[in-house]
Amino acid sequence: MNFSGVFSPIPTPFDDRDGVDTARLKAALAKWVATPLSGFVVLGSNGEAALMDDFECDQAIVAARDAVPRDKAFIVGTGRESTQAAIKATKRAAEHGADAVLVRTPGFFKSQMTNDVFVRHYTAVADASPVPVLLYNFTAVTGVNLQPAAVARLATHPNIVGMKESGGDVAQVADLVSLTPPGFAVLAGSAATLYPMMCVGAVGGILALANALPEPCVRLFELARAGKHDEALALQRELVPVARLLGAMHGVPGLKAALNLLGYDVGVPRPPLLPLSESIVPALREALAHFEEMPA
Amino acid sequence: MNFSGVFSPIPTPFDDRDGVDTARLKAALAKWVATPLSGFVVLGSNGEAALMDDFECDQAIVAARDAVPRDKAFIVGTGRESTQAAIKATKRAAEHGADAVLVRTPGFFKSQMTNDVFVRHYTAVADASPVPVLLYNFTAVTGVNLQPAAVARLATHPNIVGMKESGGDVAQVADLVSLTPPGFAVLAGSAATLYPMMCVGAVGGILALANALPEPCVRLFELARAGKHDEALALQRELVPVARLLGAMHGVPGLKAALNLLGYDVGVPRPPLLPLSESIVPALREALAHFEEMPA
Amino acid sequence: MNFSGVFSPIPTPFDDRDGVDTARLKAALAKWVATPLSGFVVLGSNGEAALMDDFECDQAIVAARDAVPRDKAFIVGTGRESTQAAIKATKRAAEHGADAVLVRTPGFFKSQMTNDVFVRHYTAVADASPVPVLLYNFTAVTGVNLQPAAVARLATHPNIVGMKESGGDVAQVADLVSLTPPGFAVLAGSAATLYPMMCVGAVGGILALANALPEPCVRLFELARAGKHDEALALQRELVPVARLLGAMHGVPGLKAALNLLGYDVGVPRPPLLPLSESIVPALREALAHFEEMPA
Amino acid sequence: MNFSGVFSPIPTPFDDRDGVDTARLKAALAKWVATPLSGFVVLGSNGEAALMDDFECDQAIVAARDAVPRDKAFIVGTGRESTQAAIKATKRAAEHGADAVLVRTPGFFKSQMTNDVFVRHYTAVADASPVPVLLYNFTAVTGVNLQPAAVARLATHPNIVGMKESGGDVAQVADLVSLTPPGFAVLAGSAATLYPMMCVGAVGGILALANALPEPCVRLFELARAGKHDEALALQRELVPVARLLGAMHGVPGLKAALNLLGYDVGVPRPPLLPLSESIVPALREALAHFEEMPA
Repeated sequence: MNFSGVFSPIPTPFDDRDGVDTARLKAALAKWVATPLSGFVVLGSNGEAALMDDFECDQAIVAARDAVPRDKAFIVGTGRESTQAAIKATKRAAEHGADAVLVRTPGFFKSQMTNDVFVRHYTAVADASPVPVLLYNFTAVTGVNLQPAAVARLATHPNIVGMKESGGDVAQVADLVSLTPPGFAVLAGSAATLYPMMCVGAVGGILALANALPEPCVRLFELARAGKHDEALALQRELVPVARLLGAMHGVPGLKAALNLLGYDVGVPRPPLLPLSESIVPALREALAHFEEMPA
Repeated sequence: MNFSGVFSPIPTPFDDRDGVDTARLKAALAKWVATPLSGFVVLGSNGEAALMDDFECDQAIVAARDAVPRDKAFIVGTGRESTQAAIKATKRAAEHGADAVLVRTPGFFKSQMTNDVFVRHYTAVADASPVPVLLYNFTAVTGVNLQPAAVARLATHPNIVGMKESGGDVAQVADLVSLTPPGFAVLAGSAATLYPMMCVGAVGGILALANALPEPCVRLFELARAGKHDEALALQRELVPVARLLGAMHGVPGLKAALNLLGYDVGVPRPPLLPLSESIVPALREALAHFEEMPA
Repeated sequence: MNFSGVFSPIPTPFDDRDGVDTARLKAALAKWVATPLSGFVVLGSNGEAALMDDFECDQAIVAARDAVPRDKAFIVGTGRESTQAAIKATKRAAEHGADAVLVRTPGFFKSQMTNDVFVRHYTAVADASPVPVLLYNFTAVTGVNLQPAAVARLATHPNIVGMKESGGDVAQVADLVSLTPPGFAVLAGSAATLYPMMCVGAVGGILALANALPEPCVRLFELARAGKHDEALALQRELVPVARLLGAMHGVPGLKAALNLLGYDVGVPRPPLLPLSESIVPALREALAHFEEMPA
Repeated sequence: MNFSGVFSPIPTPFDDRDGVDTARLKAALAKWVATPLSGFVVLGSNGEAALMDDFECDQAIVAARDAVPRDKAFIVGTGRESTQAAIKATKRAAEHGADAVLVRTPGFFKSQMTNDVFVRHYTAVADASPVPVLLYNFTAVTGVNLQPAAVARLATHPNIVGMKESGGDVAQVADLVSLTPPGFAVLAGSAATLYPMMCVGAVGGILALANALPEPCVRLFELARAGKHDEALALQRELVPVARLLGAMHGVPGLKAALNLLGYDVGVPRPPLLPLSESIVPALREALAHFEEMPA
């Protein structure tokens, strides 16, 4: 299993009764699998997994697994606050066909989350997991930082194969790459940082924007991998504003609104999240239109 | 139902297989119900609810309800990230005999947590709840702040009867009290702030320290309520250091270690939390010993 | 010298050429000295000292000293980033007649500002100062926290007589009071927190609001000191909103706008600070009008 | 004047009486001017300008100007909290021969520092400055962020020619480059981020590490500029740990200790800064030794 490439953390559509809408999930995936994306993450932050219960998580995994062909990576988000819950979610995901799991750090008990705590937590998950484990650091959401020193220790575990780093601190990513073995896959967490993160050794990204603009994101990856730096830089600059609109600025409401504009029919976020304010939609439409006209 | 008084957010004992230990939970409660505490919160932050699944939550509620007499308030923590999950947990708690629920703010999607989002979330929960709802703001854990302006709007709901504020900002508590009707119960979230919070209008507290030192905490409350300010101040000062040891500094590991020292047999925290480092225990023992010798 | 009471950190008027306007400074002080305030701080944060050079500081000190009678405390802000500059400013202030100095923590090199660094800095200043020294912690501005443990060490210095704590964390103030000797004067840094801070042992405050509403601030102090807690609480609640308007929300621009409304003629802030937006003035006027009608 | 390249923000040596030691400053510069560095910044953050008065600043400028040949850029840090002080410092620096000034954002009155305030401040400085102005954003120190939207407005000023961005957020740098005209020079603020920042369009850096390791830093710049990405990446990775040691971890004490080890004789930091703890020196020595053996 190769974790180099561009992966999209897909959203979860909900139906009129606020349940998981597996039909719309499959319909959206049918479109995504036709793109050059390397694979998919279900139940990531953008999948609103934090708002779903275990049964709903299983529904989403089973439906998505059904829709993703074997030549695309199928990754499931299984981070939980307790070690035992993360292990259970990981085992369930593997039973349902996950190729790998993406395990966000716990963060509720912030003052207790030392390097040692993280090493024990992830070691226990990786020991128990039937499939490879990807670490996941998302400080802006969790309020804790999985430091390179802890990752260096974890990267020696045979079942821990990589990491998604959603922070923008490129020096931390350079550190991560330096402190981990060559095969350890460091993945960028935002299209706004993909190219510079690849410059310091990231091998791809799990990018919310890749749901909306898969071709440009994959093109950026290919340009960076091929060492076509001038073209990569030009494309990176074009992607930064729209990546910010769908990411840091408007989050899941922005992502779902963008996808609906592009014909993906993914509905609205689950409460307490509100749909994107109508006043933002024109700016979103304009930002996306720019890329629709670009050659693939 | 009167929410004035001192309530303890009880810890959840786990057994050797890392399951909920209802026997030890009942045994500990049997001791606590003999104290002058006004009531109990199960499944709060200190109850490690963030580390438990729905079934385990039900186990803890049922066992605790069994052990708490009707003349003590029995409050259940039912905060969840999604509105529908918070409603389900609230209804279950009510079915199992909760007198009220304590609902922590969602906080995962931080940038989206506006006043409007909080008002919709809590209004939906309160509309659906068979029992009174207490709001719960814990910025240090959630990374979001339930502002007085939002609370002012929510306090007009007939089923929202009060709030626990775990932050130390006494001006915010003064604001809360000013902006809410007289019967709205503002409760301090730490024994380190109980007396000054009562000075600006809080009517009690939900205090981790009250698990370990119920009498001194209740005495502080009584002194403050009776307007015996000099004595209250003297006792408040004595309580600040030990409140910090069990609270901000060592969290659940500190609380459970303290209770084990005092004979409560509540075991160790659930992983990824680690037991309190042995090197801290002597300081904890000394801080507690000071109060054991004090007259009740 | 007794540092119990209410002190106002006076603003510095600037003239049309953006120089210190000593005439207007004296005129404003002539009004303030007729109020029941216990004394004044020149060149505090609200005095825009951070925007003034040493010569201008001397101008302001000399003019203010001239206008303040000997029965009011005359305190000068002399905090600087370097120890030697803080010492020089302190000596100059003493030469010009300061009764005491208020020395804000350095904070530029945040990661280096350990307890030891603070203890050395303040010890050197206090050793060199001809007048008593008040410590000053203002984390929201400096980004560093002068912790109670460091204050406890400094409070043993015979020339360090008290501290202004501008943070809202009432537990930290309770800690400060507990860890320092009885004569050490802890002063609140905001009218929004004066009463609860006094409940835990503060002996007064240095309050921006006291420039605009000296009588209500002094009345609150007197009520708290006399143990008239119900009345203190009622007045504290009334003062919180206007204290926030002039403090955390609108800063120096808000304070100067309020004073101009009240007839103090203190002009506009020095650039880069902008005058208060006109759109805020009506709310400010209304908040102040409430107190004009109150009995003194 | 071309601001592409590697510049070092030189430290200021102090003598036994804690005065500016111009002789040692010149001696150190005599060594630095023989390196391939493109130029020097005096009175930057690393120059401890925050701890110096105006007269001392003049001393340092005059001494350094004397030691820097005309074919190296000679840049002076002139950021001040007030607009008028920044203008005065800028004019003095120009009179003393500065080729350009580097103007850190004000940050004391954090809540008032809006985009409009920054635009007015820098426009006033640039209007008055006889020499080109470089903006300087250092959020970790100032607590405020000079956002790309404000920089975009300022970059149209004919006398504002570039910016030093000391944050590690590579997406913000990509934004800066996208929103400013081609000739606007964006410079990295840390050797830990130089290569990835150049990947997104930075044209060089002002790097504390360049004081200690000028050749490796310049080599990294040259590799990045020449599009030798594999070699640049390899060198970047080697530099990250030592850049962190001298930068975020140990600040000016770390930088001065490193330079003393390398024979530069720059003395110790000015109080309240303490010299680097002796316990850190061996790690510093080892980190530096690695590069001494590398081919230049």
